[in-house]
Amino acid sequence: MASFSADRAYAEALDAADQLAHFRDRFVRPNWDDVIYLNGNSLGPLPIRTQARIAEVIDQEWGIGLVRSWDNWIRQPQQAGDMVAEHLLGAEAGQVIVCDSVTVNLYKLAWAALDARPDRTVIVTDDDNFPTDRYVLAGVAAQRSCELRTIHSDIDGGVSEQALAEALDDRVALVELSHVAYRSGALADMAALTHLAHDAGALTLWDLCHSAGAVPVQLDVAGADLAVGCTYKYINAGPGAPAFLYVRNELQHQLRQPIWGWFGQRDQFEMGPRYDPAPGISSFLAGTPDIIGAIAVEEGARLLAEAGLPQLREKSAALTEYMIALADTWLAELDFAVASPRDTSRRGGHVSLRHDDAWQLTQALLRTGVIADYRTPDRIRLAPAPLYTSFAQVWDGIHQLREIAASKSYADIPPEQPLVS
Amino acid sequence: MASFSADRAYAEALDAADQLAHFRDRFVRPNWDDVIYLNGNSLGPLPIRTQARIAEVIDQEWGIGLVRSWDNWIRQPQQAGDMVAEHLLGAEAGQVIVCDSVTVNLYKLAWAALDARPDRTVIVTDDDNFPTDRYVLAGVAAQRSCELRTIHSDIDGGVSEQALAEALDDRVALVELSHVAYRSGALADMAALTHLAHDAGALTLWDLCHSAGAVPVQLDVAGADLAVGCTYKYINAGPGAPAFLYVRNELQHQLRQPIWGWFGQRDQFEMGPRYDPAPGISSFLAGTPDIIGAIAVEEGARLLAEAGLPQLREKSAALTEYMIALADTWLAELDFAVASPRDTSRRGGHVSLRHDDAWQLTQALLRTGVIADYRTPDRIRLAPAPLYTSFAQVWDGIHQLREIAASKSYADIPPEQPLVS
Repeated sequence: MASFSADRAYAEALDAADQLAHFRDRFVRPNWDDVIYLNGNSLGPLPIRTQARIAEVIDQEWGIGLVRSWDNWIRQPQQAGDMVAEHLLGAEAGQVIVCDSVTVNLYKLAWAALDARPDRTVIVTDDDNFPTDRYVLAGVAAQRSCELRTIHSDIDGGVSEQALAEALDDRVALVELSHVAYRSGALADMAALTHLAHDAGALTLWDLCHSAGAVPVQLDVAGADLAVGCTYKYINAGPGAPAFLYVRNELQHQLRQPIWGWFGQRDQFEMGPRYDPAPGISSFLAGTPDIIGAIAVEEGARLLAEAGLPQLREKSAALTEYMIALADTWLAELDFAVASPRDTSRRGGHVSLRHDDAWQLTQALLRTGVIADYRTPDRIRLAPAPLYTSFAQVWDGIHQLREIAASKSYADIPPEQPLVS
Repeated sequence: MASFSADRAYAEALDAADQLAHFRDRFVRPNWDDVIYLNGNSLGPLPIRTQARIAEVIDQEWGIGLVRSWDNWIRQPQQAGDMVAEHLLGAEAGQVIVCDSVTVNLYKLAWAALDARPDRTVIVTDDDNFPTDRYVLAGVAAQRSCELRTIHSDIDGGVSEQALAEALDDRVALVELSHVAYRSGALADMAALTHLAHDAGALTLWDLCHSAGAVPVQLDVAGADLAVGCTYKYINAGPGAPAFLYVRNELQHQLRQPIWGWFGQRDQFEMGPRYDPAPGISSFLAGTPDIIGAIAVEEGARLLAEAGLPQLREKSAALTEYMIALADTWLAELDFAVASPRDTSRRGGHVSLRHDDAWQLTQALLRTGVIADYRTPDRIRLAPAPLYTSFAQVWDGIHQLREIAASKSYADIPPEQPLVS
């Protein structure tokens, strides 16, 4: 490939050589040209096969099969979990289950981890972790009279090994961190940080929301204990689709989650007098799972598996590198700064740009069909997804941002907070 | 109407006079004659408008609107909650929210109730309550070193006021009961039992799974404090659709649920450093809600509202009365017993029959297209739903059961437990 050029022709050449380019036809957008979608790390688009499968589940399995279809649905949380485990998380089957929300799963696993370390009373997380992680842990800490020890994270660079090492001692029961930081996209060294935590006798709980489906995750190899993640971003399973959770095989019989429901019960339909947790990962279920959502998770994971995580990561890295190069070329002089790691090996699937008028710029982009998102205090998040984003779209999106910033065409937009992004 | 006759012509006459008969055309079953569906208290069928609305949400709002549709979705849990509150639960707006599973919602509310009664350490429930209720409460009791005091419930008749009164004292923080018993269909006197609990200083938490959409519920008038319920039975919202929870207005600022997530946060997208619960019912949200499911809940509630709960209750009572009369006429001599209250005012939307071979009989019914369900130890549950079940179908279903029992045509079916029912 020729060396970087800011000409659009360079992007077109990259697209022409892209072996994954045809995967954009696997989504329902009738014409991708009407939007440049750089927000798949908030809500991924709709795969055609998912659309067809959901219609089949609703029209045939629910509509015609009625309650009889539960014979097929009853194992859907495990089945979708195995698909996610094997293809996206580097985990052997039987360790992942699809259910509930990330928030509820964080609660279940944090609670179970504290039970498993009864002599320890400290949870460690970082001050730039995603809000729901910090809030859930604060709640669990309050309920159990534990300390929530919050280490400092570089807002652009994530959690360092040194920061974690300094926070660890023999009172730490659990370390909870995000694998990819939601704002900067910084990619943590899961194996190294897990090793540090284990050396101190603590368990690890990884939030994979911004990494599952975006970067190859190796939970088993890294020795991770616990993990959660969402499925409506890079797994493209739809708004509010159920989350997943991972519990390492050896821990499954030791850990008991606190929400004792009938779907976590051994011999569920015996309806016996006492709660007796099901064997294995099923004991981490609570109530009746969202079946349509879990089917969408399975389909989303299958599509990613077909493209191949290593191939997707390679293209993703090229897309974000290209985006950063364009930002350096065009945007630095317009008061933007790259707010993500420049080292590709430390960067997940998205790029964050800092600008004082980030909120208005994001709104102005939206008016032109470039969908990015704003994050406090002054960040624009841009996620080119290797399944459906082209290099030319990255060029078009960053070029549009340059035009808007240079012309100050966003001046009419009030500097207010978004309701949703 | 003529007095009861076991001739099918009597059922046909009742159907001819049924003002709600046309509502069966609002469901997608191409031909209801291929099944007699008496299992809507396990999974309700698919309303046509729900099918269309879900397709619109998936194809247009998700597929085309992408993340921009969150501007409309963000209030869906509250919007669906208000629809359920007003039309099905006798509750003013702002007290119900659609989210999570019944199990998770029971956990949240039981925990919050114990926090609100810090000097009390007892939870009261009954020994025939639905498994997930008993299991969740046992878990919460274990985690908080509380006592779970289990009162005896008549398996055919539910919880008596006397049994509850004997269990109450000044140590009881919370009374958790089902409004309609899952096995017998016994309908509790919510107002009287709530009054007893309040006299003892306890809060009440009602499980409405088998009553929401089946019988008119009057949460506000009864003075109920808290409630949960599912939506995939009589509300017809689909497999694993999200549950709802109710918190009485005056309690909302006193109670804090334990799962602190970003959707329960005031100014969610500020992503601030500390958890600060949203005002009102929104603080009882945890993680990202299932949007497709919550939209199906809203549509399901709208369809019930269109028919009218009083009208539905009147027809439901007539259907179950008729079913019991046929059972008395035909089935008593075949070793069946009615295992539901005979007093219509104490019976919910379904009828339970006892027979030693209940499991095999249920399977044999299924082979003939009559879908009922089995419940341990020896019960057949039959739910004629007033939105779509005709009197002739009740005749056909009970007639089929009589034929099977009289001929012992189920003798080839092994007496094993079902995987799912």
